[in-house]
Amino acid sequence: MGMTIAEKIIAAAAGVDFVKPGDIHTVNLDRLMSNDGTTHLTVDMYNNNLKNPQIADRSKLVFIVDHNVPADNPKTAASQKKMRDFAREHKIDFWEGKGVCHQIMMENYVCPGELIFGADSHTCTYGALGAFGTGVGCTDFLYGMVTGTSWVLVPETVRFNLVGKLPDGVYPRDLMLTIIGEIGANGCNYQVMEFGGEGAGSLSVDDRMVLCNLAVEAGAKTGIFEADEVALEYLRARGREPKAVYTSDEDAVYAREYTFDLSGIQPVVARPDFVDDVVPAKEVLGIRIDEAFLGSCNNGRIEELRVGAGILKGKRVAEGVRFLVVPASLEVYRQALKEGLIGIFMEAGAVVMNPNCSVCWGSCQGVMGENEVLISTGTRNFKGRAGHPSSKVYLGSAATVTASAVAGKIALAKQVSGI
Amino acid sequence: MGMTIAEKIIAAAAGVDFVKPGDIHTVNLDRLMSNDGTTHLTVDMYNNNLKNPQIADRSKLVFIVDHNVPADNPKTAASQKKMRDFAREHKIDFWEGKGVCHQIMMENYVCPGELIFGADSHTCTYGALGAFGTGVGCTDFLYGMVTGTSWVLVPETVRFNLVGKLPDGVYPRDLMLTIIGEIGANGCNYQVMEFGGEGAGSLSVDDRMVLCNLAVEAGAKTGIFEADEVALEYLRARGREPKAVYTSDEDAVYAREYTFDLSGIQPVVARPDFVDDVVPAKEVLGIRIDEAFLGSCNNGRIEELRVGAGILKGKRVAEGVRFLVVPASLEVYRQALKEGLIGIFMEAGAVVMNPNCSVCWGSCQGVMGENEVLISTGTRNFKGRAGHPSSKVYLGSAATVTASAVAGKIALAKQVSGI
Repeated sequence: MGMTIAEKIIAAAAGVDFVKPGDIHTVNLDRLMSNDGTTHLTVDMYNNNLKNPQIADRSKLVFIVDHNVPADNPKTAASQKKMRDFAREHKIDFWEGKGVCHQIMMENYVCPGELIFGADSHTCTYGALGAFGTGVGCTDFLYGMVTGTSWVLVPETVRFNLVGKLPDGVYPRDLMLTIIGEIGANGCNYQVMEFGGEGAGSLSVDDRMVLCNLAVEAGAKTGIFEADEVALEYLRARGREPKAVYTSDEDAVYAREYTFDLSGIQPVVARPDFVDDVVPAKEVLGIRIDEAFLGSCNNGRIEELRVGAGILKGKRVAEGVRFLVVPASLEVYRQALKEGLIGIFMEAGAVVMNPNCSVCWGSCQGVMGENEVLISTGTRNFKGRAGHPSSKVYLGSAATVTASAVAGKIALAKQVSGI
Repeated sequence: MGMTIAEKIIAAAAGVDFVKPGDIHTVNLDRLMSNDGTTHLTVDMYNNNLKNPQIADRSKLVFIVDHNVPADNPKTAASQKKMRDFAREHKIDFWEGKGVCHQIMMENYVCPGELIFGADSHTCTYGALGAFGTGVGCTDFLYGMVTGTSWVLVPETVRFNLVGKLPDGVYPRDLMLTIIGEIGANGCNYQVMEFGGEGAGSLSVDDRMVLCNLAVEAGAKTGIFEADEVALEYLRARGREPKAVYTSDEDAVYAREYTFDLSGIQPVVARPDFVDDVVPAKEVLGIRIDEAFLGSCNNGRIEELRVGAGILKGKRVAEGVRFLVVPASLEVYRQALKEGLIGIFMEAGAVVMNPNCSVCWGSCQGVMGENEVLISTGTRNFKGRAGHPSSKVYLGSAATVTASAVAGKIALAKQVSGI
């Protein structure tokens, strides 16, 4: 009996030759990432609840301030200071204001074959480089930080065969929302979503991040792609080496298999208040919006900024609509600067902000008031996610979000582009 | 007996030939500006407390969202929505996310000779163009909005003769902090600070804004310059015409006169928690900082960004220090983009944010935690102004702030530039 990519990563981390779903293994962690959502809690526990506090291997740790950047009140300032001081004291890699944690991890750390715990649910993003990334709470994070190890209940793997190519004007975001809509928010509970097939090969690492990042929205433990030449090229360009490159065995066992024909995907929108309430965008056209958000670890990279700027160029954001553009990292921002995209956004009346979680986190930037409507490239549209419990969040692609910002209501790019 | 510039503006607004300090006059207002600090209160009063609500002249009104941009919680989102809806309903000029209100007013509205009420204390900025701008509360604003008029108790004028030229590396910010340090926070209570003399002529409109903007920190009703050729050129470049250009009469009566020799000014810093606790910067060198802020209606214009970028180029923000750079308006931001300054700031590790009040307002961006230390180009350093009541704010020039960001402690530009 063969193994899937995820099983091979766990086996290697557990120091065994073979694992199967349902096994529990102690594993060595390759990396641990924590952000300002909970690191202050980890630090408190470390300082107050351990008899012999110690860090197994500081070189495995990365602390990233990205949720409330810059601090929006004395409380978040205090949490971040605790994190900053702890990182300095223990010589932990520390990032602040440089982007959303997962984007920074992908740009600077993640390597194929690694097993990574992150104190953030969207740690599953790292599967875009053939790593096993998964979100944990701050107590599990503390245990990993102190021992360098943790345990994993080996998840089943579900295979998603991607065939064909996305049509023009349709994006990986549309594909992944379509998948979640089809399988449901519990469609892959505690399972691995393995994406493969010829359609997968045509996707960039940025595209793959869009898919893996939202795996948790289908309940998955993680999402993962094989680290093919596209992934290795991404890695090489950043001067990194894979830990190991795994392929799923031909006789690997999958819990289920799905096939998605990319050429049949169309622009979709997830309606409030559930990520899996997905409908063709054309069914919700005309719904008035108050705000549009282009950004987040799901959809704030250079490819999405290019799409948005391409639609926006020479047009204006609709009166009364706030359009917030937030590059996912400083690297993305600087690339967008070079390409003149930032100027295009500003010219059109968008507000371009510093790289951070921003509107997607719903806590300090672009927060929604009572009954307001947001269309967003963020990760979630749960009740109250973006502010007031009565506000509504629609999720769409960078194209749909930008077109909606121009129209002042949910719209398709082809409508505002006059194509 | 002659009149000062301020008296002539009031006389014209009152429709009389002559006014003198101590007179009370009903005046026609040329413009009324209100921001998201209090506009929602004005709107509530308008809707709920007036028998026959009406707006005298909507073309005089400007509403600007600049304090919490974009909204940082459902409450500010609701306030801004109220403001946005009211502006739309009444066809009031409405700006959102385009910059600090005073900067937007100067770029787009203020004309020499005008009498302008703003629901913000730093409305005194408009004297840089020879207008009489002053801050009022939202009830006074409401009265002005409904009637187009208000009343003014004619203030005395204090004359500040500026002679000589600022040395290299010394800025209008240093000059104005020096003046406030000398005359004190109550030094010109309910008086007009009139700046003139050959030293005034050498200052740009941006420079003059720095002086007038802080007039209220000496208790003044407003600060004002004569609208000379420098001012008229600024106006012409923006396609505007003066309402009237006034000069103080030779026999105008001043409450006091001061002379400041610009060539003798040195870099200064206002220490916590008072704007008038001003000392030479060299007396506070080495004080460790947590954050540095370059921005605000006082000191966030292109000239200050140039100074900051000039110092920062090729250097790095000190580890553990947040350096927040916030252009005062979109116009400033776009100019800085064109000149490559934004890239320099980002390259050095600064966080560049969207134009708004930001750290100076201390409510939603770059807020200070317990015992943290900020050095800032903002307007005020009162206790708790930037966050936690125990945090400390030092005020300095763009040069001193940037140098401190590089050094991680209060420093002079020449120290980090190795000159």
